[in-house]
Amino acid sequence: MKIDVIISAEDIHDSKIKNKIVVVIDIFRATSVIITALNNGCKEVIPYLTIEETLEFAKKLNREDYVLGGERKAVKIEGFDLSNSPLEYTKELIRNKTVLFTTTNGTRTLAKSVSAKKVFIAAMINAESVAKKLININEDVVIINAGTNGNFSMDDFICSGYIINEMLKYNKSMELTDISKTANIIYKENSDILSYVRKATHYTVMKSLKLDSDIEYCVRKSIIEIVPEYDGERITYTK
Amino acid sequence: MKIDVIISAEDIHDSKIKNKIVVVIDIFRATSVIITALNNGCKEVIPYLTIEETLEFAKKLNREDYVLGGERKAVKIEGFDLSNSPLEYTKELIRNKTVLFTTTNGTRTLAKSVSAKKVFIAAMINAESVAKKLININEDVVIINAGTNGNFSMDDFICSGYIINEMLKYNKSMELTDISKTANIIYKENSDILSYVRKATHYTVMKSLKLDSDIEYCVRKSIIEIVPEYDGERITYTK
Repeated sequence: MKIDVIISAEDIHDSKIKNKIVVVIDIFRATSVIITALNNGCKEVIPYLTIEETLEFAKKLNREDYVLGGERKAVKIEGFDLSNSPLEYTKELIRNKTVLFTTTNGTRTLAKSVSAKKVFIAAMINAESVAKKLININEDVVIINAGTNGNFSMDDFICSGYIINEMLKYNKSMELTDISKTANIIYKENSDILSYVRKATHYTVMKSLKLDSDIEYCVRKSIIEIVPEYDGERITYTK
Repeated sequence: MKIDVIISAEDIHDSKIKNKIVVVIDIFRATSVIITALNNGCKEVIPYLTIEETLEFAKKLNREDYVLGGERKAVKIEGFDLSNSPLEYTKELIRNKTVLFTTTNGTRTLAKSVSAKKVFIAAMINAESVAKKLININEDVVIINAGTNGNFSMDDFICSGYIINEMLKYNKSMELTDISKTANIIYKENSDILSYVRKATHYTVMKSLKLDSDIEYCVRKSIIEIVPEYDGERITYTK
């Protein structure tokens, strides 16, 4: 069982992920939103690359059956119901609804991951459950960090290290690539996640937009037990 | 002044390095060899991608004017004078000679860096001098890790963090990308370089080939003061 990490959506090549078990991470905030929304009872999340595609698909549904969510430049899209804040995806607003969702980094990463055998959705908030799922599957894993605008992002990297750390509790003989080992070292040496993440470029952007409650929520560890899966079209989960 | 890090030769894109100041690192062992050879008085190092090119160019020179150096799969190439061990490039063997040099990762990285404005050669052994040179130039820098077979390599990464750390002594307001910050954190949190590098895949390969003295040499810090520069054809240095 080998664990590799890809550090940004820019670096995804089919040769690295084809037929592999893939985990997509975008803790600030796309994957944190997806996990939260499904945990709060939405029917499914459908990710789109563009606003146009999102609105196009929305036309096919009854207005009461979906919500439009996502961001551009970290803020809510005009005409959309919800932004990219996981805290907005409450039970009241989304139960049994389809979430049509488009973001800058997260949904692009998902689109680039479709050649994988399986694509799971991870963040700090469900890391333990993701680790257990991967251990049960017991195949090679590629953890993909969405990163920020094609670049490495500290927040996604430390989350990769956290998942690897949880996996090591069950299987100490996993083969880790150098980048996986480094992610794990970063996690182990920075037990105060927030003080590491505070140095991230993405953190500064969110802070400037006063998204403090989102930051606090997204760095919470394993508060949710579901592991959403993307089938190339829809994201759902099975218990 | 912005500092970025590219984590492997595979991830070099012209858009990231064009007209930038670039530093190439392959501590195990190509850049450690180049720095050592020039410090020991060779006339120049000329890097080649293939063994064939290397031998082709050799034909143009008198036999006493050059040495053939490099590796494939970390061992000496048949018919070559020297392997990829910096310890072999002694004053006695190379003074005033041209070193014709081909390796798996290092020379490939150099070939992919030619669109940069300047290409400097760095390793642990000359890191302090490299940092001072970059501070004097005072322009954006991209530190390129050769990596190993297209993948991230822990040894090159901690060296990047070391160079950044030295630069920060002179300029605390440099803009660091997330990956630069992480390299620097790894360096600061692993003051015993060897115990970090011991986890590297490349280290295991070298250890299995009994290259212990090379490893010990290549992790020594700032024992050489020259900063070689690659002009797209030859590597030399000016005092």
